[in-house]
Amino acid sequence: MSDVAAGRRARGGGGSARRAERTAVSFETAKFIQRNIPNFEILNEEALQIIEHNAETVLEEIGVNFVENEAALQRWRDAGADVRGERVRIPRGLARELVKTAPKSFTQHARNPERSVEIGGRNLVLAPVYGPPFVHDAKGGRRYATIADFRNFVKLGYMSKWLHHSGGTVCEPTDIPVNKRHLDMLLAHMTLSDKPFMGSVTEPSRAADSVEMAKILFGSDFVDQNTVMTSLININSPMTFDGIMMGALEEYAKANQAAIVSPFIVGGAMAPVTVAGTLTQVLAEVLAGVSYSQLIRKGAPVIAGAFVTSIDMNSGAPTFGTPEASHITYGVGQLVRRLGLPYRSAGGFCGSKLPDAQAAYESANSLNMGLLSGVNFMLHACGWLEGGLVSSYEKFVMDADQLGALHHLAQGVALDENGQGMEAIREVGPGGHYLGCAHTQANFKTAFWRSDLLDYKPYETWAEEGARDTMALAGERVQKMLADYQAPHLDEGIREALEGYVARKKESMPDAFL
Amino acid sequence: MSDVAAGRRARGGGGSARRAERTAVSFETAKFIQRNIPNFEILNEEALQIIEHNAETVLEEIGVNFVENEAALQRWRDAGADVRGERVRIPRGLARELVKTAPKSFTQHARNPERSVEIGGRNLVLAPVYGPPFVHDAKGGRRYATIADFRNFVKLGYMSKWLHHSGGTVCEPTDIPVNKRHLDMLLAHMTLSDKPFMGSVTEPSRAADSVEMAKILFGSDFVDQNTVMTSLININSPMTFDGIMMGALEEYAKANQAAIVSPFIVGGAMAPVTVAGTLTQVLAEVLAGVSYSQLIRKGAPVIAGAFVTSIDMNSGAPTFGTPEASHITYGVGQLVRRLGLPYRSAGGFCGSKLPDAQAAYESANSLNMGLLSGVNFMLHACGWLEGGLVSSYEKFVMDADQLGALHHLAQGVALDENGQGMEAIREVGPGGHYLGCAHTQANFKTAFWRSDLLDYKPYETWAEEGARDTMALAGERVQKMLADYQAPHLDEGIREALEGYVARKKESMPDAFL
Repeated sequence: MSDVAAGRRARGGGGSARRAERTAVSFETAKFIQRNIPNFEILNEEALQIIEHNAETVLEEIGVNFVENEAALQRWRDAGADVRGERVRIPRGLARELVKTAPKSFTQHARNPERSVEIGGRNLVLAPVYGPPFVHDAKGGRRYATIADFRNFVKLGYMSKWLHHSGGTVCEPTDIPVNKRHLDMLLAHMTLSDKPFMGSVTEPSRAADSVEMAKILFGSDFVDQNTVMTSLININSPMTFDGIMMGALEEYAKANQAAIVSPFIVGGAMAPVTVAGTLTQVLAEVLAGVSYSQLIRKGAPVIAGAFVTSIDMNSGAPTFGTPEASHITYGVGQLVRRLGLPYRSAGGFCGSKLPDAQAAYESANSLNMGLLSGVNFMLHACGWLEGGLVSSYEKFVMDADQLGALHHLAQGVALDENGQGMEAIREVGPGGHYLGCAHTQANFKTAFWRSDLLDYKPYETWAEEGARDTMALAGERVQKMLADYQAPHLDEGIREALEGYVARKKESMPDAFL
Repeated sequence: MSDVAAGRRARGGGGSARRAERTAVSFETAKFIQRNIPNFEILNEEALQIIEHNAETVLEEIGVNFVENEAALQRWRDAGADVRGERVRIPRGLARELVKTAPKSFTQHARNPERSVEIGGRNLVLAPVYGPPFVHDAKGGRRYATIADFRNFVKLGYMSKWLHHSGGTVCEPTDIPVNKRHLDMLLAHMTLSDKPFMGSVTEPSRAADSVEMAKILFGSDFVDQNTVMTSLININSPMTFDGIMMGALEEYAKANQAAIVSPFIVGGAMAPVTVAGTLTQVLAEVLAGVSYSQLIRKGAPVIAGAFVTSIDMNSGAPTFGTPEASHITYGVGQLVRRLGLPYRSAGGFCGSKLPDAQAAYESANSLNMGLLSGVNFMLHACGWLEGGLVSSYEKFVMDADQLGALHHLAQGVALDENGQGMEAIREVGPGGHYLGCAHTQANFKTAFWRSDLLDYKPYETWAEEGARDTMALAGERVQKMLADYQAPHLDEGIREALEGYVARKKESMPDAFL
């Protein structure tokens, strides 16, 4: 990482840039979570073996489709699969063998080396909501998202202490032509934040643009040798790998950039209505997708994922924070760890239209499950509303505050002499009070997590101050953060080069809104 | 249990009572949770042994105080403890030996035998909020609780499907003299619900009244031979057992009624500011309290508990749903299981003034932790607001709805042939859709938990219907439930006997409001 820093300084162009860097406001970001607690393992060994056996049966007997992608079919033939039409049947054990070349863990570099993240192992990296076409705030209500909203969410993410990653499509900038959006989104992540970010996946050419812009930001050699983007490649469940998504995967894998290979599951619709059936299909899909990435480039970094929701069988609506989604998320975690791959799942999921109690119940259910299920990369950790249709300003800061609790929960229980606290119990004794004792005085600043947003005031004070609910507190926080925002330092030459690339690319093609 | 039913029928007085019973509206109640998932174990064997060793050191070297209770001191002397003044030092291993006579699990009988609960083992029994002097509802705001509120909460608890227990002081009926409240509270639980309930602990004489009224309800012989009440005995942490609470414990233990022996911990005030220190103190207190119950009557049913909250070191306010409280709750669960005792902890805890997002985040954190920590008896599972100062009507039904998710989560993952769902994956195949397949049709009604309260509607429908948040939906639900309430059948002779007991007792003493 010191290479990046040195490289950046070298590009930085001398004393004035260094001075600007020193004087810029720096917003504190916590280090990615390094778990010191066990994972919750809902499946026993026998259950895991049944599901693993069944997944291999699915790959061997039913197979998966690689759609509109002749090169992929040829790669599978060469690897020893049985290919008929677009159907790829993978002999038992082959996919499991192929995924072994994927790294157990990898570094995604940020342009600020202090904010680089290690994805895998016992780590958890938190990234914001991805994909909503709408935004919501308490004053303006729900409306289509714009590039101004997008920039706001990147700013909020940059200033959020417990968020390690700037994410990708934090909302869809619907005021920009579809074929040019990715350029403005990448430019925002690269210039308004110094946290790691995601690349575009909506067309292979946009993935290529992402790599080109990353080379401007990090330097071409650096990008060739290091992973600087982690991008979201959804599988069209059940068992379908479409040409566009695989094209993007191919671009990233070739460039040694990371892909999240992630079945998109609405239980009962895209997967069997039972948990074990869904686990079987997810494992088969992950095996096929990740092994395909290794056919493109052995050792290409991959995250094996699952986006999971259940369905309300009364209305067909997707539901969030439900027990069945938890079962699946815990189970996929165990299966992915047995493959030795980094794991993506969970998030602050909810179906609510407002950042109200429903949103918080459902999101807390999901966030806690995500931590305990051993997730390594959690997309949608903050800001998700209404089943992912909406990026909520208030919920972004509400969830981002709760992410602090996950950090503390993951620390586990200290059992050194200070942790045991026997001298405190001796000092205080029966009927005493710990607030004033030496052990409390020595530890109180770091002993307990406290929310930086929620209300801890006495009732009377809270009532005098306007009896604000959480949404109101969060709305005020959003306004203050956006007012206080200051961009991280970026070398002017790099900024101009990025802006030039975006301008040239935009000029090179007509607008397209589909 | 058939004896109870037979006894109740015998007292029922013939055909008309039986007909009334058959025609009474019955509100469905789920069976207590029988976990089919593992517990989350945050401490390893070495950590557990350190804490167990330290707890014995606390008992042996520091000791505990039994205050204003000469009989208790004599019992400890007789048991082999070192008693000086009110300080009781318990030789290493003695308390652990004494608790062995407490049952691992016991049945608390309800007057409706179908609603009896088994407390211990892998079971989880859910009971409502206990103790608040205030109530809150969306229309009326926050105000002192009355006996009318108390009766309303008993009715809501009776009608809540996922709540197994009617609880105890669901709110403080502040309009009734302090020395007479317990009579009206017991009468409400006994007549307005047929779920199991808790007895009074605020004076030994009130515990005795509880036993007497239970004898009227269940029959004297039945109460002598069975447990029909589970009552809350708080320990004054650190390490102080006051005479009133122990007096109530003595009454219940003598009558073979169950006591929850529960340290009341605000971390950093009543216990060390570190988790391991708190675990040590809690274990020492539980060992002392539970072993004392066995000195009163070997085999008396006990639940070992911990009420745990952390503190906001900025303001001194108690905080809820925090990671440190989770650490402690997980750890106490492990320690209590190693003692072979039923475990009480957790609840729908929050510090919020409103049933808003803060309330829901904090409560969901607590509820999930409670399930995974192996809790057997969860008090405060619904209705808790503002740090326990307030019983909230809306939050009662909001939490009670979420308790359904805990039931489903606890079921674990089915791995029979239907659960594996291989025929569904074969039938649907790549690119297909599961909604219509035979496996989905056969399973969809029970496959996924759905909330009975939260909003799953499309945005447009939700907006047309008034854009209600969760509090508004819950407020409407409360009104409908109270309007729909019908009392469970109770033999008129028993009702008159209970009312007569209450009237006589009230007449026998002047009102006291302190």
